[in-house]
Amino acid sequence: MAEDDNTVYVGSKPAMSYVLAVVTQFSEGQDPVHVKARGKAISRAVDVAEMVKRKFIEDAVVDDISIDTDQIETDEGEELDVSSIQIDITQE
Amino acid sequence: MAEDDNTVYVGSKPAMSYVLAVVTQFSEGQDPVHVKARGKAISRAVDVAEMVKRKFIEDAVVDDISIDTDQIETDEGEELDVSSIQIDITQE
Repeated sequence: MAEDDNTVYVGSKPAMSYVLAVVTQFSEGQDPVHVKARGKAISRAVDVAEMVKRKFIEDAVVDDISIDTDQIETDEGEELDVSSIQIDITQE
Repeated sequence: MAEDDNTVYVGSKPAMSYVLAVVTQFSEGQDPVHVKARGKAISRAVDVAEMVKRKFIEDAVVDDISIDTDQIETDEGEELDVSSIQIDITQE
């Protein structure tokens, strides 16, 4: 998944690459920045938000967190429920 | 980690065992129930909250979600930062 407008999709790369993507979005004037992830990447999305807040952008705050269930289709054509998270980060 | 009062700590067991722990807490009159997890178990905690809400307790809603960074000590005595989540579930 790629980064576009003000959303960073967190996947299986190291957390730091998504942290840098978020920092870049803020430096380009985006605010809020949405950090999204599904399934096992949800834990990494939380790591990313915490690292941005604590180590990179001092005035960044988590504005809202929401969770949901997405239906995805497997390669075999089966419907599968997968949890998702969206973390909205703003600069104060 | 164990279940006590109105908190369910999500670890490495299958999600369903934590779902049943949450359902049990509600059946015993606890409200809200807090679902907590650290590190890689965060994704499972989101699964647990979504499963409770969608499949087990129809009037359950996610009231609040917060994330944080906890300092834990490794077996080698080193300090390590680990992300955590708390999901508060209530019955409407």
